[in-house]
Amino acid sequence: MDSLEEKTLHSEMLFKGNIIELQVDEVELPNGEHSKREIIKHPGAVAIIPFSADGSMYLVEQFRKPLEKTIIEIPAGKMEEGEEPIITAKRELEEETGFQSDDFTYLTSFYTSPGFANELLHIFVARDLRKVEKPLKQDADEFLNLVKVTPDEAEQLMQQQLIHDAKTMYAMEYWKLLLLMEENA
Amino acid sequence: MDSLEEKTLHSEMLFKGNIIELQVDEVELPNGEHSKREIIKHPGAVAIIPFSADGSMYLVEQFRKPLEKTIIEIPAGKMEEGEEPIITAKRELEEETGFQSDDFTYLTSFYTSPGFANELLHIFVARDLRKVEKPLKQDADEFLNLVKVTPDEAEQLMQQQLIHDAKTMYAMEYWKLLLLMEENA
Repeated sequence: MDSLEEKTLHSEMLFKGNIIELQVDEVELPNGEHSKREIIKHPGAVAIIPFSADGSMYLVEQFRKPLEKTIIEIPAGKMEEGEEPIITAKRELEEETGFQSDDFTYLTSFYTSPGFANELLHIFVARDLRKVEKPLKQDADEFLNLVKVTPDEAEQLMQQQLIHDAKTMYAMEYWKLLLLMEENA
Repeated sequence: MDSLEEKTLHSEMLFKGNIIELQVDEVELPNGEHSKREIIKHPGAVAIIPFSADGSMYLVEQFRKPLEKTIIEIPAGKMEEGEEPIITAKRELEEETGFQSDDFTYLTSFYTSPGFANELLHIFVARDLRKVEKPLKQDADEFLNLVKVTPDEAEQLMQQQLIHDAKTMYAMEYWKLLLLMEENA
């Protein structure tokens, strides 16, 4: 296989925000030509698939400004600097749903959009949820509604494009697989 | 349910690149407070799950500058302005793999990272592939290796974190579901 690596010739940081940074790199391509790469730097994030004891899943409804649309997602949030993913997972589950759990299982990690962003998302499954009396507060600029769904209701939300993002679609495929494997067991 | 919408008070375009734009919006939150939203605008993209007649899948190995890493993904590419997703799908499949197909099926669409980007990804399944003698050329700054994998090989690539992005992980869950349903049929 040919080496596909691109060597950085020059790197310029154009924007440092609260959540993302924008950097433009000039690179040397494998054939020696030069090109530019527009890169979004992101601290990484964690998402949780929270199953209830009665076989439903908890989701959160949230307005997403980039989409100008309210969608329904698995709970998620960005990692603080130096934070272990499992710590983020416990915090975000409590902040966004009001639940705690001692039964977190690491499922997988993936880059959400490798063409232009380095955001790495870690996914956990949480079971054996218990309602907390005084849960951690949501971020000051975060407004959410909690939604509990059966597999059939989730299917309807996908068809209505209310479930409409990568991590939640992944969670739904994972759920279908689980249910099919349970049926077969 | 409470309304979660955020009203735009002010919008500033900070960067227009070849692939992405950066915009910062000042918004009014549901409680009347103000906040800022960092938004990446992206033209949208298409990805293809290409199945071979012998039950394998074709993937492409590509260096991803934002990750500083070479990973293996389902073929994909961004949409040109005004382009129908199916047209992008046919073009990208040919450019990236050298295959054409008359059997494209639309599978689903999802936002890759709704917290900060409006990138919408459309996914198609392609079957009945035929090798083209003189395929469309890849973009001048795009270098790829074609990789054909069985389900077991794909599983290994996931464990090695060489398959490591959302759309390809979704494709793998989809593939597992298909195989399990075929077994049960």
